[in-house]
Amino acid sequence: MNESNGKALVLLSGGQDSTTCLYWAIDRYGRDNVTTLSFDYGQRHRIELDCAAAIAGHARVDHRCLPIDTFTALGGDALTDAGIDVANETDATSGLPNTFVPGRNLVFLTYAAALAWRLGVDNLVTGVAQTDYSGYPDCRENTLAALQQALRLGMESNVQIHAPLMHLSKRETVELARDLGGLDAMALTHTCYNGLRPPCGECPACLLRAKGFAAAGVEDPLLAPA
Amino acid sequence: MNESNGKALVLLSGGQDSTTCLYWAIDRYGRDNVTTLSFDYGQRHRIELDCAAAIAGHARVDHRCLPIDTFTALGGDALTDAGIDVANETDATSGLPNTFVPGRNLVFLTYAAALAWRLGVDNLVTGVAQTDYSGYPDCRENTLAALQQALRLGMESNVQIHAPLMHLSKRETVELARDLGGLDAMALTHTCYNGLRPPCGECPACLLRAKGFAAAGVEDPLLAPA
Repeated sequence: MNESNGKALVLLSGGQDSTTCLYWAIDRYGRDNVTTLSFDYGQRHRIELDCAAAIAGHARVDHRCLPIDTFTALGGDALTDAGIDVANETDATSGLPNTFVPGRNLVFLTYAAALAWRLGVDNLVTGVAQTDYSGYPDCRENTLAALQQALRLGMESNVQIHAPLMHLSKRETVELARDLGGLDAMALTHTCYNGLRPPCGECPACLLRAKGFAAAGVEDPLLAPA
Repeated sequence: MNESNGKALVLLSGGQDSTTCLYWAIDRYGRDNVTTLSFDYGQRHRIELDCAAAIAGHARVDHRCLPIDTFTALGGDALTDAGIDVANETDATSGLPNTFVPGRNLVFLTYAAALAWRLGVDNLVTGVAQTDYSGYPDCRENTLAALQQALRLGMESNVQIHAPLMHLSKRETVELARDLGGLDAMALTHTCYNGLRPPCGECPACLLRAKGFAAAGVEDPLLAPA
């Protein structure tokens, strides 16, 4: 456990996985040594940013947010036609906003490493998992290893990328959150592809989440009556 | 020479080195297969962006520009005090704008790789050189090799990063530009730290440039009488 400098920066999207990672980091490094980071990059549901801030507040950790205007400029047709209103367009088949950019996770981690460098933090914690493999090759373990090497050389740092959920099933992620005392914060997370609170319960993201909680035998606090 | 897919994206800052790289790419891949990319990231001298566009126009190649608002947010005191006007502040000792961010070159290359992915381009060309080593570890050859690996894995691409000036002296860079027919474009480049056109001739950047041209026995077109 005595690795790096004992401080951590958690990439917090406001979802279930990154929130679980926040509690993993608090358990490992201590609440006072943990900072969270969100990105305002033109995501489909800005409610994620509010959720992230609320989760960090609930967990009583320092929270930062960085703007990224580049993805929108890079996204889809906007690249060649400045007249298209990208932020509100969505790819019907992928369900991704057309601000999706290949290697987006590499950008997130590089900015996180730059912020960590300024804050004197060695450990980056990201909630990427193997279930994200297919559509997101920049979430793979070998990609993260190569990027860590580039970041260490490029910033002359000891930065270490942790992906504690990499090999966990959704069930195991729920169990981890429960075991780390992170269940209450789950009520503040956002998952629904349709951007609804309370969640629609019918989109693929809601169904995947429900399946994980059911398999773990845990009631989802987000769905509990107030 | 028969590597990758024969198309190239050149990171064009508007300076002498990246302009030399543009002519290197035109020579290697052909004018019709070359695109240039600049970043509007809050640089100290916005005249660089105008120079880059003018150079691309002069060379008759496609030109793109991407915005990056993240560096300013990450830069120096702005990180903790939103009231500071970062864009106009400069570090007196380094001469760098305080929008300088560790690993900035990693971000540039990652965005370039994302754009290249969308454009179906395999080759990235950057003007970084060993003379930049001291202050910029992300310009080192081993950093670029690690990043290339991360980009290939993270985007499932065959992207290749070329740094043709990596081991050249300033003299050799001038000779290369001359041999590739890139001297005329040098009149359109920007080098001066003080942002002046015609250049001040006294700042470290002007002096370094002058030394390179003198060593190569070439008159700098930027200083030639109109």
